[in-house]
Amino acid sequence: MSKIIFPFKITGYGSYLPEKIQTSKELSSLIGKKEDWIISRTGVLERRISDIDVDKMGAIAAKKAIGAKDKPDLIINASGVPKQTIPDTSVFIQRELGFDGIPSFSVHSTCLSFITALHVASNFLQTDLYEKILIVSSDRGTRGRNFKEPESAALLGDAAGAVYLEKSDNNSGIISYTMNTFPDGVELTEVRGGGTNLHPQDKETLYSDNLFSMNGPRVYRMARQKVYDLIKKDLSNNKLDVNDIDLVIPHQASGMAVKAYSKYGGFDKDKVIDIIDKTGNCVAASIPLALNIAHQENKFKNGDILYFVGTGAGLSIASCIFKV
Amino acid sequence: MSKIIFPFKITGYGSYLPEKIQTSKELSSLIGKKEDWIISRTGVLERRISDIDVDKMGAIAAKKAIGAKDKPDLIINASGVPKQTIPDTSVFIQRELGFDGIPSFSVHSTCLSFITALHVASNFLQTDLYEKILIVSSDRGTRGRNFKEPESAALLGDAAGAVYLEKSDNNSGIISYTMNTFPDGVELTEVRGGGTNLHPQDKETLYSDNLFSMNGPRVYRMARQKVYDLIKKDLSNNKLDVNDIDLVIPHQASGMAVKAYSKYGGFDKDKVIDIIDKTGNCVAASIPLALNIAHQENKFKNGDILYFVGTGAGLSIASCIFKV
Repeated sequence: MSKIIFPFKITGYGSYLPEKIQTSKELSSLIGKKEDWIISRTGVLERRISDIDVDKMGAIAAKKAIGAKDKPDLIINASGVPKQTIPDTSVFIQRELGFDGIPSFSVHSTCLSFITALHVASNFLQTDLYEKILIVSSDRGTRGRNFKEPESAALLGDAAGAVYLEKSDNNSGIISYTMNTFPDGVELTEVRGGGTNLHPQDKETLYSDNLFSMNGPRVYRMARQKVYDLIKKDLSNNKLDVNDIDLVIPHQASGMAVKAYSKYGGFDKDKVIDIIDKTGNCVAASIPLALNIAHQENKFKNGDILYFVGTGAGLSIASCIFKV
Repeated sequence: MSKIIFPFKITGYGSYLPEKIQTSKELSSLIGKKEDWIISRTGVLERRISDIDVDKMGAIAAKKAIGAKDKPDLIINASGVPKQTIPDTSVFIQRELGFDGIPSFSVHSTCLSFITALHVASNFLQTDLYEKILIVSSDRGTRGRNFKEPESAALLGDAAGAVYLEKSDNNSGIISYTMNTFPDGVELTEVRGGGTNLHPQDKETLYSDNLFSMNGPRVYRMARQKVYDLIKKDLSNNKLDVNDIDLVIPHQASGMAVKAYSKYGGFDKDKVIDIIDKTGNCVAASIPLALNIAHQENKFKNGDILYFVGTGAGLSIASCIFKV
């Protein structure tokens, strides 16, 4: 097995799942599809709907991750969709946490933002500047659902996840990190509004341009082979066997996408965290939420090898082999 | 002087200034203020208006920065406002560059995004993963002007700037990097729309919520003391005198803000890059544009000490001492 290239420890975990549940039965009348259709297409039985905004959601998760520890030296927001265009969401999260003066910024690679931020933070923790870093992913995808696009509307759910990272000289940290972006997929998963492209001032901007749109089947077809190749490369580059991976923590893109990690990826089904039936696709919060749930359920222990992996709009793929 | 903590070299510079000029005289009728008022309040005589979107603008700057060199191993978009909410702008820039498979993501800290990305990239360049990194800042602030808020509307201009960074064992790189975020300023500079906060689906969302809003005088008052303290701390921590800084490359927030670096900051006026009269505040592109113009005009040479410094919505302050 390859050695740890960026030593650090996750010393705090936190997540937030809104109380309000929307079942696929309840959703069916809104999107004009039967419950069975929704479940067979998306794998989502129910999803959470947040009444509070992403900064407050993220702060609840962050407070749990911080616990009784010192305030972090840096806050990275790693969410898929911001609270607003300016300032970046990290400032709002910091306000909710009651902190002042802590450097903060956002990292954005849609559903892969958490993996990207983990890589950024792990690099920072090799230097003298920061001893402890908070990463927060908070997404309220249900705000952007287009009920006229039933499949993507049925996928999305709200959640937040956070981790508190600390410097560590010991045997924990990142063994491998890989990312690739393929602009051929740029139009497969979009919210076309919200920026300079289709601005509200443009007459041609439609209401639906501000909503989430995804060609799920095309994303799946494009992503499956690329993710498969990524897994093979990660394992061989690091002289690992599928059985050396103790737990796969994938982005919860869709029921079919999560199941592909065991069906095609070669991982034992019990080793793949699969929460999409209860949470939906929570955009960037999916991976840290899955990590948090695995942590709560004692699904991993010190020394275990975790494999963060997923796809993001772009299309991007990314993975991170992490020793706990 | 402190030593270089993150060695790397800037081996490519590129920028894009749209051809179309809008003078303050031309703008005056749109915002109901006289030319003299605009110039005295903002220091902006003219600004550029882009007809092409941020990804194409960024790609033009990026192509110049890449020149005849190899394609980069990583593309970081470090802009203030995205092309659209999903995917992040880096994917669109990569598409415009004709690349495929290069990892890419965005870093967002509004006007400080370039300094933040420089810090992120400089950390990455200490590892084996990336040999050469492209940073692109591209902002089209004129798309978000609120003509009913004359001062901020008169400030904004469009531009893009890019740098190509390479690993280096020699005597070039970051000597010091500092950032602080103060959420007390969160409502002083905003685009309240574009995210989950004031979504187009909400009845209470106003057209103006999707436009740029800034309380310039309050930002200036809040920022001036904080930036002054930052400069003092940077110099003393690194055992530098103001005269050891060969060139100050500040964010072009406003005429008054840029002039404060010499008036209060103690730097010689000739050492402070001041382009705001011709470009306006180009959001995150301001700093790399100013760097590019200084490079074109041979205002620095190998071995010189540059000081990147500025403020961002949040309110955030950041600085970076860089040896060329």
